[in-house]
Amino acid sequence: MIIIKVGGGEGINYDAVCDDIAQLWREGQQLIFIHGGSHRTNVVAEALGHPPQFVTSPSGYTSRLTDRAALEIFQMVYCGQINKTLVERLQRRGVNAVGLSGIDGRIWQGPRKNVIKVVENGRTRILRNNYTGTVTQVNYAFLQNLLDAGCLPVLTPPAISFEGEAMNVDGDRAAAATAAAFRAEELLILSNVPGVLRQFPDEASLIPQLHADQIDQVAEAYAQGRMRIKLLGAQEASAQGVRRVVLGDARGQQPILRALDGQGTIITQPQPEMTA
Amino acid sequence: MIIIKVGGGEGINYDAVCDDIAQLWREGQQLIFIHGGSHRTNVVAEALGHPPQFVTSPSGYTSRLTDRAALEIFQMVYCGQINKTLVERLQRRGVNAVGLSGIDGRIWQGPRKNVIKVVENGRTRILRNNYTGTVTQVNYAFLQNLLDAGCLPVLTPPAISFEGEAMNVDGDRAAAATAAAFRAEELLILSNVPGVLRQFPDEASLIPQLHADQIDQVAEAYAQGRMRIKLLGAQEASAQGVRRVVLGDARGQQPILRALDGQGTIITQPQPEMTA
Repeated sequence: MIIIKVGGGEGINYDAVCDDIAQLWREGQQLIFIHGGSHRTNVVAEALGHPPQFVTSPSGYTSRLTDRAALEIFQMVYCGQINKTLVERLQRRGVNAVGLSGIDGRIWQGPRKNVIKVVENGRTRILRNNYTGTVTQVNYAFLQNLLDAGCLPVLTPPAISFEGEAMNVDGDRAAAATAAAFRAEELLILSNVPGVLRQFPDEASLIPQLHADQIDQVAEAYAQGRMRIKLLGAQEASAQGVRRVVLGDARGQQPILRALDGQGTIITQPQPEMTA
Repeated sequence: MIIIKVGGGEGINYDAVCDDIAQLWREGQQLIFIHGGSHRTNVVAEALGHPPQFVTSPSGYTSRLTDRAALEIFQMVYCGQINKTLVERLQRRGVNAVGLSGIDGRIWQGPRKNVIKVVENGRTRILRNNYTGTVTQVNYAFLQNLLDAGCLPVLTPPAISFEGEAMNVDGDRAAAATAAAFRAEELLILSNVPGVLRQFPDEASLIPQLHADQIDQVAEAYAQGRMRIKLLGAQEASAQGVRRVVLGDARGQQPILRALDGQGTIITQPQPEMTA
């Protein structure tokens, strides 16, 4: 099983992504495809007069401020526009894609974080009525049933809280939880950068290889913005036994085949200690 | 099996709809729930600067003009906003709802009508690049697999063409095709009117009962706007063996329980000829 997460930033080549998925599908590879939609959500939110707002947590992670109005726009774009155009592209390529959110069949479930702490101008502030959370349970049986029926699941946030509320979750970490639930051999997390860069945005400064136990140090020293959360996702997947995570580039041709071929930042399990 | 279609006009009581579905679900009733989203789509399309356009066919049916831009807005609202908020409402009531469009797993497939004839100011005109079509194949096996897995399918247009393109289809007729595929005992088509009215909009002029072979005559004599297509859906379902179709009202409390109880316009098979 390979779990493929493709982000929603500007410049993603969705046609090339779907070409690669169709090729792997024809070869009989078991796959789950997970996507984002942040750039389009920002555009639609602006157009609808609810401009996106982002907040930074005390630990330095940036995320979308998700009140109920933002959540509904988020759902429109992620579950409506992007999910269905990806399913359509895949169906046109002969892949029996089925698009679902984490709410459907409680595929992604976890605790909602109604109250969050954010840092603004160096001061910590409390925000309420927040529709975000974390995936702690993946409905493996439901997804396996779809796979057994010959479907390719195409998954997207939001997830669902234990109380049954839709909530925004980080797609990279949801992908990591899914990879862990399936004991996937590989997790690909693709976005619009080539991987972890020592000197962002200098693409020549790509870090090609990491062991999972180096992630904290690398995240602290080099990672910018969204890359910190991708590294956190990689760390969570590795800790739960996923052998290889690739942080790769979804711009250009053959983005998935290139990542499988090792282009990007490859994260593997730490080397075992030598025994006497 | 009961197929429940709830339209997307103004005034629908979605909480009451979900309350009733949850009650039937707890009682063990097999269900498929299909919804529309026309009113919200109009609102969002206006807000995004692509105001909705409607066209009338030479045979007198009114439908949404669906170019590619309109299709994507349609998908955002139907598959994103409305489908997911309904799934959320049902999950919160303990129903294991799974929201899907007709594209997913090719649930609703059929021919696309790229070129349509429309009547404007009494003159017939040809329109191209139209993303509409008709459902002629329902993926029964996929839906039955979901039902067997303990899920309630929550379905919405668009459907998918034989060539793999998303296309707008009429939700009432898609519901009729689904009811026929399942040989459902009953099809409920609920909207924001009480049923077929002899003198629209006088709600006291409700026609409480019809035989399927009277539909053409009633549609010709009395039906306004969207009611003509609902009657066509009822006719198609009846012709394929659905024993009872109710055109009912989804405003107010207990809309589904009331329809099951016979409130609205009930359409049954024609009386069999007496045999000697």
